Amino acid sequence: MTKPLEGIRVLDLGHVLAMPTCTMQLADLGAEVIKIERPGSGDDSRYFGPFVHGESAYFMSINRNKKSLTLDLKQEEGKEIFKELVKKSDVVTENFRPNTMEKLGLGYHDLKKINPKIIYASICGFGHYSVDQQRPGYDIIAQASGGIMAITGYPDGPPTRVGSSIGDIFSGSFATIAILAALRYRDITGEGQEIDISMMDSVLSVLENAVVRYTVTGEIPTRIGSRHPSIAPFDLFEAKDGWVVIAVGNDSLWGKFCKIIHQEKLINDPLYQTNDLRSKNYDQLKPLITSWTKQQFSEKMVALLTKEGVPAAEVSTMDKIVRDPNIKMRNMLIQMDHPKAGKVTVANSPIRLSKCPNDTIDASPILGEHTEKVLEGVLEMSQEEIRKLKDKKVV
Amino acid sequence: MTKPLEGIRVLDLGHVLAMPTCTMQLADLGAEVIKIERPGSGDDSRYFGPFVHGESAYFMSINRNKKSLTLDLKQEEGKEIFKELVKKSDVVTENFRPNTMEKLGLGYHDLKKINPKIIYASICGFGHYSVDQQRPGYDIIAQASGGIMAITGYPDGPPTRVGSSIGDIFSGSFATIAILAALRYRDITGEGQEIDISMMDSVLSVLENAVVRYTVTGEIPTRIGSRHPSIAPFDLFEAKDGWVVIAVGNDSLWGKFCKIIHQEKLINDPLYQTNDLRSKNYDQLKPLITSWTKQQFSEKMVALLTKEGVPAAEVSTMDKIVRDPNIKMRNMLIQMDHPKAGKVTVANSPIRLSKCPNDTIDASPILGEHTEKVLEGVLEMSQEEIRKLKDKKVV
Repeated sequence: MTKPLEGIRVLDLGHVLAMPTCTMQLADLGAEVIKIERPGSGDDSRYFGPFVHGESAYFMSINRNKKSLTLDLKQEEGKEIFKELVKKSDVVTENFRPNTMEKLGLGYHDLKKINPKIIYASICGFGHYSVDQQRPGYDIIAQASGGIMAITGYPDGPPTRVGSSIGDIFSGSFATIAILAALRYRDITGEGQEIDISMMDSVLSVLENAVVRYTVTGEIPTRIGSRHPSIAPFDLFEAKDGWVVIAVGNDSLWGKFCKIIHQEKLINDPLYQTNDLRSKNYDQLKPLITSWTKQQFSEKMVALLTKEGVPAAEVSTMDKIVRDPNIKMRNMLIQMDHPKAGKVTVANSPIRLSKCPNDTIDASPILGEHTEKVLEGVLEMSQEEIRKLKDKKVV
Repeated sequence: MTKPLEGIRVLDLGHVLAMPTCTMQLADLGAEVIKIERPGSGDDSRYFGPFVHGESAYFMSINRNKKSLTLDLKQEEGKEIFKELVKKSDVVTENFRPNTMEKLGLGYHDLKKINPKIIYASICGFGHYSVDQQRPGYDIIAQASGGIMAITGYPDGPPTRVGSSIGDIFSGSFATIAILAALRYRDITGEGQEIDISMMDSVLSVLENAVVRYTVTGEIPTRIGSRHPSIAPFDLFEAKDGWVVIAVGNDSLWGKFCKIIHQEKLINDPLYQTNDLRSKNYDQLKPLITSWTKQQFSEKMVALLTKEGVPAAEVSTMDKIVRDPNIKMRNMLIQMDHPKAGKVTVANSPIRLSKCPNDTIDASPILGEHTEKVLEGVLEMSQEEIRKLKDKKVV
């Protein structure tokens, strides 16, 4: 056994990002993920840039290690094939608008009659069990309604969407946790169950101190920029050629830091002597620090601070990250060899299990690449049967 | 069986946020999490505000459903007790600086000799297997080095730290996924293993399209504010009393939207007729939309747009979220009854499993609250033995 989810088969109706993130995580861990796509067009994200030789690198990055089966679920024969696959699978995943699967006659309550052990996981904007069931769930809607936009950004600026789709990615990750937990429950009890992940719930659940700050004190958390709410200096600073973060977490680091920036006189200055004073008088302190940081090149400045034990980091952009020796050592950027696009580099899974290495990935599938293999291999169909299904555009 | 992780025992040396997030997720799913804390002081986050009757609500929010055992791992007797507990546990978790456990003689290679089935999970800034092993891993360091700060914020503004500690929270969630996968591997093979999660890796792995945009096109992703990179209007807008997001995803919604904002003439305007044109001419288009949104109250505006099928949401702050009927229906804000602090409301787990409801939580533990119960119940110690350990401040 080289991967922990070997032997687990997932029928994945996920599209775009939220559920595909979940099934990417499952596939990275060794599950057989059969991505079911509309014949002809497939997942919408196949049309998202950037493209390499006409193939979406966006799609590639979240669909590696999966198989693609085309199947028209609106045709009766498509539904029958899906049900036959459900009998031979462990998990069904989808992120359609709620009731889509029920209307097709393929909701959890239909599928559990066929396979009582099936685990059925869905992600949508506001939950299947919801007063807002039909509200659409784009990432920006979840980031806005779940509360993270209101607390991201600068005090004098507008709310800010997080620069990657964390509403989708957290929902997908929570779906993965739920599916793994449900597999354990199933292995012990023999029973499947339904999983209902809401994107707004997911965002709300990661607001950290913002929730109790309101429920306990009544204070409405808002934007404080990049600084720490109660430690100073612990913030973003401008360099000559970019930006760095510096985290002076205690008085001993404060002493070291003042020496590095040639401001020894600040160490015992009654305005800045303790963390409480530094936090209170931070508006006056910050320009004193910035006048130094602006004269420094970011890479050298971070090396200097780090050598002296003051936590610091460059605000890395992708061009720096690809050259980072630690990222190379940890194999965090990994190449797939795609039959049409050639070699494409994507972010690897961050999960490092000592007995189940993550050192290679299979390319994302061409639309319908595994249709025949799945129909033959899992459902034992003949070439003749498959040809008929193709003629009728069922697959 | 009412919870999927019933019967799993976790010895949790996690502190502050990253690993406590993981063990909160495990405890929410029914694992017995024994939080091991320094006698006398305990987890640093017990001193993070806000406080209720002197107790940290921050600590409460991420340590519900756990037990607290005080144990001094620097004393020989403390180490022995820890090793005895390892024999009777499934998982050990920690987020110390790398080598801390090895120096105590309690690293994975020590513990697996005692219990070859043990799963040992750690989180640190840059990985245990790393060229930067000893670099400290605060959330802001991970957000900066992992690349999310560089792509969060407005084009004319600085990089922006995400308003909650997603470097910690993603790392913790990936540790949960890894542990659940390793439990499955152990159940099948009988073997435990080591898990090594890096906070920088975790952030890099959630950058979404930013990675392939660079690796495929060479373009360095930067900040684009709250707008969508290729759909318009799909952005944040100012209301009379706050902020809303509006997501006009296609031409049919564009027609509806123009009617709502009384700008029918824009529908077929050659500057804005198609999504490509709207994206291209968005700088001119945005003020036309804002001139309408600024005249509207956010709640009414979102209700109007939603009724007409145009996806929209308020940029919710916590005061709005606590009143949200859907959040109430989904029980996403949940009360614990804390022995000292009384009733405190925290964010619930977003995981909804139909057979394992999340409808109650146990309060976070007082420091050492379960010391006697664990020593008696798990290690079958006598009252006399426990009294001696207390005298020597081992527990």
